[in-house]
Amino acid sequence: MNTHTPSGHTNAITASRVIGTAVYNMSGDHIGSIEDVMLEKMSNGIMFAVIGFGGFLGIGEKYHAIPWSALDYDEEKGGYVVPFTKAQLEAGPSYSINELTRGDGTLARDESYSYYKVDPYW
Amino acid sequence: MNTHTPSGHTNAITASRVIGTAVYNMSGDHIGSIEDVMLEKMSNGIMFAVIGFGGFLGIGEKYHAIPWSALDYDEEKGGYVVPFTKAQLEAGPSYSINELTRGDGTLARDESYSYYKVDPYW
Repeated sequence: MNTHTPSGHTNAITASRVIGTAVYNMSGDHIGSIEDVMLEKMSNGIMFAVIGFGGFLGIGEKYHAIPWSALDYDEEKGGYVVPFTKAQLEAGPSYSINELTRGDGTLARDESYSYYKVDPYW
Repeated sequence: MNTHTPSGHTNAITASRVIGTAVYNMSGDHIGSIEDVMLEKMSNGIMFAVIGFGGFLGIGEKYHAIPWSALDYDEEKGGYVVPFTKAQLEAGPSYSINELTRGDGTLARDESYSYYKVDPYW
């Protein structure tokens, strides 16, 4: 759904608009794209964004769980910028699809917020 | 991403899994499907689910903003059940795509939570 406005600082954004958006690190390197967004069904929170960094034809692709609040939309780039270095991201925790939802998503979530030093929202 | 588990009571669910899921009312009538999920960029909340009720080739299609917490997954039906009657839903506030994000989504959100008598999460 095309509900994105020209401003990068709108508050409301549809999940389908977020999915597929490119992600860059602070140096401007393209590091991957948003594959999905993990939502809490029982409460009302957005757990994290699922970022794909590529893989060989999808085989063995690993995903990173990035705190939602760490994504900052950059109009010029047409993508999100995360305040992390390439080294930080490469050394960050990564997960298979199944691992992402272990413990109802709290394992990946807690590890990610701790690693990226982002204050928990919960 | 196939991260849905057999239990309808998992907490973590990906946005892409939610989108496209059928929605039923209390009487078991199929009332539409989830077209999207509206997310808050600046905070960490899920504003509402966007439900489509159909239209003529998509022209003039109107969307309903349904509080996220009102969706209950029913394994047998393979879809979400909302605790509202057909009459309630038909008389409920509906929006064009552009109207959904007016006022950063708060207009549709506030009207919806008020109409469906769901406690605000914000």
